Amino acid sequence: MAVSQQELVEAWRHVLTLCKLGATETVCLLTRPDIHQQNVNAAEHVARQIGAYVLRLEPAIDTRSLHENKVAMQALKSSGLVIDFLGLHLLRRGEQEEVIRSGARILYVVEPPEALVRLLPTEEDKRRVRAAEACIRKSKSMQVTSAAGTELHVQLGEYPILSEWGYSDEPGHWDHWPSAFVATWPNERSAQGTVVLRPGDIIFPFKSYVRDEIRLQVSDGYITQIDGGFDAEVLREYMSEFEDLEAYAVSHLGWGLNPRARWSRLALLDKHQTNGNDGRAFAGNFMFSTGPNTDAGGSRNTLCHLDIPMRKCSVSLDGVPMTIDGKVVAKGQT
Amino acid sequence: MAVSQQELVEAWRHVLTLCKLGATETVCLLTRPDIHQQNVNAAEHVARQIGAYVLRLEPAIDTRSLHENKVAMQALKSSGLVIDFLGLHLLRRGEQEEVIRSGARILYVVEPPEALVRLLPTEEDKRRVRAAEACIRKSKSMQVTSAAGTELHVQLGEYPILSEWGYSDEPGHWDHWPSAFVATWPNERSAQGTVVLRPGDIIFPFKSYVRDEIRLQVSDGYITQIDGGFDAEVLREYMSEFEDLEAYAVSHLGWGLNPRARWSRLALLDKHQTNGNDGRAFAGNFMFSTGPNTDAGGSRNTLCHLDIPMRKCSVSLDGVPMTIDGKVVAKGQT
Amino acid sequence: MAVSQQELVEAWRHVLTLCKLGATETVCLLTRPDIHQQNVNAAEHVARQIGAYVLRLEPAIDTRSLHENKVAMQALKSSGLVIDFLGLHLLRRGEQEEVIRSGARILYVVEPPEALVRLLPTEEDKRRVRAAEACIRKSKSMQVTSAAGTELHVQLGEYPILSEWGYSDEPGHWDHWPSAFVATWPNERSAQGTVVLRPGDIIFPFKSYVRDEIRLQVSDGYITQIDGGFDAEVLREYMSEFEDLEAYAVSHLGWGLNPRARWSRLALLDKHQTNGNDGRAFAGNFMFSTGPNTDAGGSRNTLCHLDIPMRKCSVSLDGVPMTIDGKVVAKGQT
Amino acid sequence: MAVSQQELVEAWRHVLTLCKLGATETVCLLTRPDIHQQNVNAAEHVARQIGAYVLRLEPAIDTRSLHENKVAMQALKSSGLVIDFLGLHLLRRGEQEEVIRSGARILYVVEPPEALVRLLPTEEDKRRVRAAEACIRKSKSMQVTSAAGTELHVQLGEYPILSEWGYSDEPGHWDHWPSAFVATWPNERSAQGTVVLRPGDIIFPFKSYVRDEIRLQVSDGYITQIDGGFDAEVLREYMSEFEDLEAYAVSHLGWGLNPRARWSRLALLDKHQTNGNDGRAFAGNFMFSTGPNTDAGGSRNTLCHLDIPMRKCSVSLDGVPMTIDGKVVAKGQT
Amino acid sequence: MAVSQQELVEAWRHVLTLCKLGATETVCLLTRPDIHQQNVNAAEHVARQIGAYVLRLEPAIDTRSLHENKVAMQALKSSGLVIDFLGLHLLRRGEQEEVIRSGARILYVVEPPEALVRLLPTEEDKRRVRAAEACIRKSKSMQVTSAAGTELHVQLGEYPILSEWGYSDEPGHWDHWPSAFVATWPNERSAQGTVVLRPGDIIFPFKSYVRDEIRLQVSDGYITQIDGGFDAEVLREYMSEFEDLEAYAVSHLGWGLNPRARWSRLALLDKHQTNGNDGRAFAGNFMFSTGPNTDAGGSRNTLCHLDIPMRKCSVSLDGVPMTIDGKVVAKGQT
Amino acid sequence: MAVSQQELVEAWRHVLTLCKLGATETVCLLTRPDIHQQNVNAAEHVARQIGAYVLRLEPAIDTRSLHENKVAMQALKSSGLVIDFLGLHLLRRGEQEEVIRSGARILYVVEPPEALVRLLPTEEDKRRVRAAEACIRKSKSMQVTSAAGTELHVQLGEYPILSEWGYSDEPGHWDHWPSAFVATWPNERSAQGTVVLRPGDIIFPFKSYVRDEIRLQVSDGYITQIDGGFDAEVLREYMSEFEDLEAYAVSHLGWGLNPRARWSRLALLDKHQTNGNDGRAFAGNFMFSTGPNTDAGGSRNTLCHLDIPMRKCSVSLDGVPMTIDGKVVAKGQT
Repeated sequence: MAVSQQELVEAWRHVLTLCKLGATETVCLLTRPDIHQQNVNAAEHVARQIGAYVLRLEPAIDTRSLHENKVAMQALKSSGLVIDFLGLHLLRRGEQEEVIRSGARILYVVEPPEALVRLLPTEEDKRRVRAAEACIRKSKSMQVTSAAGTELHVQLGEYPILSEWGYSDEPGHWDHWPSAFVATWPNERSAQGTVVLRPGDIIFPFKSYVRDEIRLQVSDGYITQIDGGFDAEVLREYMSEFEDLEAYAVSHLGWGLNPRARWSRLALLDKHQTNGNDGRAFAGNFMFSTGPNTDAGGSRNTLCHLDIPMRKCSVSLDGVPMTIDGKVVAKGQT
Repeated sequence: MAVSQQELVEAWRHVLTLCKLGATETVCLLTRPDIHQQNVNAAEHVARQIGAYVLRLEPAIDTRSLHENKVAMQALKSSGLVIDFLGLHLLRRGEQEEVIRSGARILYVVEPPEALVRLLPTEEDKRRVRAAEACIRKSKSMQVTSAAGTELHVQLGEYPILSEWGYSDEPGHWDHWPSAFVATWPNERSAQGTVVLRPGDIIFPFKSYVRDEIRLQVSDGYITQIDGGFDAEVLREYMSEFEDLEAYAVSHLGWGLNPRARWSRLALLDKHQTNGNDGRAFAGNFMFSTGPNTDAGGSRNTLCHLDIPMRKCSVSLDGVPMTIDGKVVAKGQT
Repeated sequence: MAVSQQELVEAWRHVLTLCKLGATETVCLLTRPDIHQQNVNAAEHVARQIGAYVLRLEPAIDTRSLHENKVAMQALKSSGLVIDFLGLHLLRRGEQEEVIRSGARILYVVEPPEALVRLLPTEEDKRRVRAAEACIRKSKSMQVTSAAGTELHVQLGEYPILSEWGYSDEPGHWDHWPSAFVATWPNERSAQGTVVLRPGDIIFPFKSYVRDEIRLQVSDGYITQIDGGFDAEVLREYMSEFEDLEAYAVSHLGWGLNPRARWSRLALLDKHQTNGNDGRAFAGNFMFSTGPNTDAGGSRNTLCHLDIPMRKCSVSLDGVPMTIDGKVVAKGQT
Repeated sequence: MAVSQQELVEAWRHVLTLCKLGATETVCLLTRPDIHQQNVNAAEHVARQIGAYVLRLEPAIDTRSLHENKVAMQALKSSGLVIDFLGLHLLRRGEQEEVIRSGARILYVVEPPEALVRLLPTEEDKRRVRAAEACIRKSKSMQVTSAAGTELHVQLGEYPILSEWGYSDEPGHWDHWPSAFVATWPNERSAQGTVVLRPGDIIFPFKSYVRDEIRLQVSDGYITQIDGGFDAEVLREYMSEFEDLEAYAVSHLGWGLNPRARWSRLALLDKHQTNGNDGRAFAGNFMFSTGPNTDAGGSRNTLCHLDIPMRKCSVSLDGVPMTIDGKVVAKGQT
Repeated sequence: MAVSQQELVEAWRHVLTLCKLGATETVCLLTRPDIHQQNVNAAEHVARQIGAYVLRLEPAIDTRSLHENKVAMQALKSSGLVIDFLGLHLLRRGEQEEVIRSGARILYVVEPPEALVRLLPTEEDKRRVRAAEACIRKSKSMQVTSAAGTELHVQLGEYPILSEWGYSDEPGHWDHWPSAFVATWPNERSAQGTVVLRPGDIIFPFKSYVRDEIRLQVSDGYITQIDGGFDAEVLREYMSEFEDLEAYAVSHLGWGLNPRARWSRLALLDKHQTNGNDGRAFAGNFMFSTGPNTDAGGSRNTLCHLDIPMRKCSVSLDGVPMTIDGKVVAKGQT
Repeated sequence: MAVSQQELVEAWRHVLTLCKLGATETVCLLTRPDIHQQNVNAAEHVARQIGAYVLRLEPAIDTRSLHENKVAMQALKSSGLVIDFLGLHLLRRGEQEEVIRSGARILYVVEPPEALVRLLPTEEDKRRVRAAEACIRKSKSMQVTSAAGTELHVQLGEYPILSEWGYSDEPGHWDHWPSAFVATWPNERSAQGTVVLRPGDIIFPFKSYVRDEIRLQVSDGYITQIDGGFDAEVLREYMSEFEDLEAYAVSHLGWGLNPRARWSRLALLDKHQTNGNDGRAFAGNFMFSTGPNTDAGGSRNTLCHLDIPMRKCSVSLDGVPMTIDGKVVAKGQT
């Protein structure tokens, strides 16, 4: 059902307040034509009330990197808070990292109003994500297992940590409303083992549940084999179409920490009705992903990016369990 | 393909005439923002032609029951005919029953224009539904079996009968365009047995076909166990999210009587393109449902409501077959 | 320039707060299809925030009086506050009076957002209008003169006083945002004299300035002669088309009290861009009007209603000047 | 106020029935992008109900004549009834005449829905127009006089008669909803005399009342002098901008016969809200016009076309009065 | 992501240039209300630039054949190029063939802008399709086999060849943007064997991948048996609903030749977001279809039409392999 | 009539080419919500085709100066070409001058598409404007006279020259499409004399013709008296409402040089249909204006700005005639 203007404005007020938007700060609403205008209008409504300087910025998107549109880049970098309504692929050439390095906060918002209102972030979410982040920071390795046969081992430390708690309240922080999720990237070529996707695991951008088991062999940081039935075939074919070996690299690995996000949500929606962050963030998932690492400061720049939230996995850091069989168990993360 | 304004107006003329809308009667169009405006416009077009007093009523929907919006409730109760474009959950706290008790007729319309035009109700539909209703009225028990293993036994008599023939032509009658369907609620705690969902059975609100067999154990009126593969898992998880034991209660049971409704329709549509009444009403289905019974005058008031039309079942009343293997066989119902 | 959603919502918050809209009160938004939806949305936004029960009510308008639509009338009469977005002629058969007698407050809003925001009412406006009202209440007669030749004398006392301060904060009070204006109706057949319209006086519904002098002879409460050039001809022809002698009756007489309303505003706008309340309310005007008096409890029910704000007149009550040469001079009214 | 879909559809049903639209006839809706879509939809609604073959035809309009778009011309000529929503100038190169010669009926509709519903044609209108047409047919000359000084004499007979009664019910007939109007073209170079426009006469396409007297000298069929104040200046300048001597030719002359059309209507509307047919058709006007005569089969093909409905004139044919001082007096025309 | 107006106009310029649209030719845009207006606008934009005579033609669609709308048919037949935005079923009663016989070129366009821009046709596509067409022309039989058990044999020669290369550049040629595909119809009653649909084969109009194997027995040109699990059931039920034996006829058979079309595309989209031509045209598919053959000049005129692109088949003509295991191998076709 | 997308895109291509928009230059489209989106879309269409980096920038407008929105200001100043769709008052606090000083070119576009296409600028326009500019540059004084009694004398030299030729092709140049106009500001307190407005002179922002003579006394650079009838009264009242003595200052003075702009245009349009540049630019007008001079680098910053194009004046520079009786006579300017 449609969210009313008033509910949506109140949700944005909650989030922009958490973002500490200041009365004389500039907030840049980064848009493109085919987005949820109700979201943009509500963001502007609240930002005006707060007294911020508001700016809608809509760069024409073509085959060139946004880096080349220097005026747009400068505007983003000079803003205090950027609300990014674009969608990830448009800033996957390092533009996002450049903006963050300038000190701007970025909040990424692509879900429809209903999901924003339902999954309002809280300070508790940040506490849990920070606790998980601290665990990653002090660890050298991650192990993931599951009854279905997943056995994945990676070394950690080369790359930064991706912490999403649903709002962006610190200079240079990128976040995503709704979320509540932590991840990091394995050291180059360190990922080894097997990942077994079971029915109910979700593959993005397909926005659908896996129905047939898929077995992924991982060697030296790359997926080297994809076995299984029809679902495996679609996955294999989709990845091969990019004609890019880097598509097979293991990318960020992490787990969901949002107790309000719902694994079952996808069963109720058409693809165009969701961007899928219930799936990415539900508490206790193991998020396996592939492809680019430019947003971690790496140079892997492939257009093929998969996010695969898995259920019923056990994730450990240096042997300390974070989740067991798809339930968060680590202290401070529940 | 889009239905033309003229076709839709003619469909509404057919239905409002069946509803016996009078020239000096008040018809209340109960709306919310995100509905098929083409339907509301066509309803108003015809009601004006007939000479009725027309009223669009759009109450703001929030967390409070509509009962509290006394002016809206009074308007609904004073109307001769209410066209309810809202959707069920908004009137699931007994508001609907209160309106009906005042003598108003309600016609519930949420399907898109294409489905309304395709599934125009007829007086023959009413005749069939009335025949089925008479069978239920004189029976003490219902038995449902299927080759797949369904064995469900319930006692009848405590609750009223839900008869939908697609238009509302009697004071205090609630109906649903399109439909043609009969059901009743089992006596409290009387439902016993097993319900086996086979591939092709449909679960609402998922609006999708079951693909893996799901076995439901029913004891003393409640589902006590849900077994099976991925589809069972989604169902189990979805129901558990409501954290409400009443979600597991067996609710209305009945069978479809619409020879024009199509089981296969769902294979052609996205979820947002249908509310699913082809599935709920196709002739010979067994409709198993769970959750609330407030619209039967009960006090079970859970937000989790499933409608599960099943194929190839045999439904008997006190041993008299109504359907056999998914075909309607009872006299007067074909 | 367009008013932003945030500015308009703040204006409505200001006004609904002045209207003392309560958290459990019902506010009825009375609409029709071709109105400023931005106004309706902003009203609902604020009413929801306050916690009121909100109801959009859109009766189909045809040749019948709204009195006959009993459900709509009952809903209006049961509401605490009615925001009337319809436009006057739709409620000119006594419906408005019936609603007020039930104790509902009515706020009439038909101007575009820009005018609402620019002419926000204040408690000072109410003070001035109340002061003027008190003067009328204790007076037996009104005299109006102007250098141009106006000499109008009327007796007072038979009819109530029309006090508009821009918001409706008392049970049974009808008001109009924006306004700030006081008037009353002359005793039946008491109006005598001459009214001389000069260039710059405004005739509604023409929404244009008079350019040629028009002389109106008034005898025993009715206009008996209309002399002048082209403007007089248009006026004469327009009035005659109603084929209704009551069109010529002198209706409410009063003066404007809004220091922020602008006589010159009309020079900047097309007719469709304004309903003209700058003209009706600018401080010091003399408002001459013709036609119906049903909203004063009378039985004069003609469809021809003219509002004619005049400049540079002197209005006295029992000889006490309220305005002199178009300037408000009475104590407490400036 | 907006006309409801139902009212507009009923108006179109009335008119298309008068047009004798047949169940197996083709009706061609000739459109362009910026027209009243509500009109086109209502026309299609009714035409479908009748069972006609309906066709929307939207030729791209550029600097070329529609004659060159042979497929569009062929479609128009093959249709039984053409509803022309385009506006006159687009068919002023003889396309209209070519379509009519093929036997198609044309109904020209450019006014907004409100005017269509208010000025519904009747068979009485046709009777009056036919009576006036008969008078012209048997006459050799027309004389027009007015108290203001108009003295115009023309010879008749070279050109056909333009009879508009508001619907098109005869093969090869062009009509205009709303109208009720008769006219003809003076014999070439026969018009002689003076035309004096008084305040209140209307000049199209200005869509405004004349306020200063304008004196037009007419010699040998052409306006040779335009005297007066500001209004004369605008007229002179506007006509001269076309740089075309044919702009000054006297074109069709006639009188209005619609008792429901209102001279005063223009005082209530912005220009964009009307095409002005109240002004062109009000009973008793004298319609003076200038410019093209291609729709009369002539070869005068200028883009400058003025329609000037005048009040208070007396029109005679061979000395027999049709109107006296702006009132229709001829037998059968009232 | 939305395609910009500029990108879409450039795509249309590319295609209309390939179509050899001439400066004085008539292009007819055949539309209905619920289509991608952005496509129609871009087509008109380019056609106007080229200087063509442009015509939007929107016939009302009802239960009658378009043949009866003679004016519309004549307009289509007289045009040089028809852009058909309608969708196939509307022209499946031979209208299309009649238009083509008149010499008009038809280009069928129903995909959304994104697909048009991504799958821009090339002259290379035509070369490949022409090469495949030549192979069919000289062959007497087609054989299709697959590892999954497909064994289909048909005789060729009675029917014409359907060659689609994505643009229509020859008089009397029908094409489809995007495509690149060749097919023909088997001789009447010549099709014999078994067709085994495997997971990943696509059934239109379901717009979904088969997940359970389906075995089709083909005898004497008709499907005589459909075996398998749930997917077979849906297929069986859907086909039976048409109550038309001709629904089971084998229709056109062919293979895809577009190297840019993607089998996996369907996994990313909702049904309403695509018409499915990635699936119909990806290089190496075997396209099995059922139902009508009126567009081949036959008289089989059923409303049930299935297109079933299959993977991993081997297609031979008189024993000469065109594709092997789903890869195009024939000379000149890669 | 609506301008087609293709015509408008071609007009923008013409103008952006004249503006020398480069393939790697940034063009900033400065927008607000209620503007002609068709213009913005066409500008982006052409800019993308050229290969420029395109940026839509929509700053929230409130009571603060845009200077404070530093990110927006920086974006404007860094752009090569700014298309300003805002409207003048939004940049009247010196923002425009600051942007120009950075070297950006600005093209101001607020007229609807129809006016843009009709009044396409040419290089001839620039030649004429440059010739007029050269005359001003070398002159010390301007004299304006008219038969109606205008006698205005001003000294020149303190302020720059405002040259508008319809496109912006030089760094730091501000221009306005459509225009073709030259002006300068009189030396402080040097303007002396009388300005007599005659019927037909136009006052902006009223967007209407003067109908009654208005006499303005000018002393020491300021209007000191406004005499006349109704039109004088409106003008006096409007100016006084700003309560700002600087409103009365004489501002830029100049003359129109566009042979395609039409004085009579205003007679055909509602106010909202035009911004009035036909009136400001028609060849031979004398443009008298009042109020701010911040865009000339002055410090007069009043919100009251009038543009008053007058007809039939004679403008001389140091005694050399530029126009005589409203006709351009100076060499190189015709």
